[in-house]
Amino acid sequence: MQVYSLSAMAEPATPTAQPRRTQVQRSATTRAALLDAALECLVEFGYANTTTSRVAERAGLSRGAPLHHFQTRTALVAAAIEHYADRRGEELRGIVERMPEGRDRTGRSLDLLFELFCSPLFQGAVDLWAAARTDPELQASLAPLERRLARDTVVLYRLLFPAQADRQALMDLVLNAIRGVSLLDVVMPGTGATAKQWRTSRALLVGLLDAE
Amino acid sequence: MQVYSLSAMAEPATPTAQPRRTQVQRSATTRAALLDAALECLVEFGYANTTTSRVAERAGLSRGAPLHHFQTRTALVAAAIEHYADRRGEELRGIVERMPEGRDRTGRSLDLLFELFCSPLFQGAVDLWAAARTDPELQASLAPLERRLARDTVVLYRLLFPAQADRQALMDLVLNAIRGVSLLDVVMPGTGATAKQWRTSRALLVGLLDAE
Repeated sequence: MQVYSLSAMAEPATPTAQPRRTQVQRSATTRAALLDAALECLVEFGYANTTTSRVAERAGLSRGAPLHHFQTRTALVAAAIEHYADRRGEELRGIVERMPEGRDRTGRSLDLLFELFCSPLFQGAVDLWAAARTDPELQASLAPLERRLARDTVVLYRLLFPAQADRQALMDLVLNAIRGVSLLDVVMPGTGATAKQWRTSRALLVGLLDAE
Repeated sequence: MQVYSLSAMAEPATPTAQPRRTQVQRSATTRAALLDAALECLVEFGYANTTTSRVAERAGLSRGAPLHHFQTRTALVAAAIEHYADRRGEELRGIVERMPEGRDRTGRSLDLLFELFCSPLFQGAVDLWAAARTDPELQASLAPLERRLARDTVVLYRLLFPAQADRQALMDLVLNAIRGVSLLDVVMPGTGATAKQWRTSRALLVGLLDAE
């Protein structure tokens, strides 16, 4: 499995020479390093094995740092997913704005949505949801995050398909089909099923979106 | 969460008076009781908490019974899913054969497929896949089961939609959309999102399947 690294995008964890950083700045840097490390651990080791001490080690921080900045392991992981979604959402909105009109715009727009679901974020999130299925407390603490992610996805969809923005049923079908194909990555990893089924499903969805 | 119980369908675990049962019969009864208990534990407690001693307790058997009949915990859980899929598949084929022609047959056929994916089996399987994502050994041992379940689903689809049996792309889209909606049960439990989105997605899929 390819491990996604955000480290290239994160602020450097080592302090810069000058000007002298304030307490607030240092705290923000530590927080960002913890969020990146938590996401990497979630993707690489799964939720069950993403302990706060492992996250601290990955971030090169003291064992106490995660719980100093986040009250619980779940809060840390949920914040990491939200942080990634924020950044990724902003990137994608930028891509949409620069996307040229013309041939296969519908197909390329679908690919963008697909990419969002096929991210390591999605795979890590499946882990978290599975754990939450039999853990009501975790479930309750994830509900606001899930609503937020669903809302972001709808915003992106409407940016990509403004002419179809009011066709709720079509949007549901498109997003559910993409979610279903993405899950194949988890269910049948390494079989090529995801790429193959995306090709065929994409063609049918383009037809539906471009009709009338 | 509603817990699915197979106990009503299982052979009675208490021995019958006469005729005296053979060793082979007793062993088959024990095996069936273990498979039912394993499935119940998977659905109720999740894969991580489905220990062999918990399964033994649920089945009312000795702690050693699970590993006497199945080599590992994973083998037991995989066999339980396969056992359930066998029984459910047979039931569904019976329902398909008795299904009358006529109005909304396409919609009712889609509902049958949807029901298959919205089963406790699917929810338990999501758990197992999520665990397998970061556990190559578990992943390898689940691959044959996953192929088997995928094959069974295709067989059922072709029984339900014989006129569309050769349209692979349409079949992929239908199954992926259903898989995507089912996942909402895990992602947003208790929100009614699954039922609502199934209603709208179903209508569009009926249109696609009934076209030409």
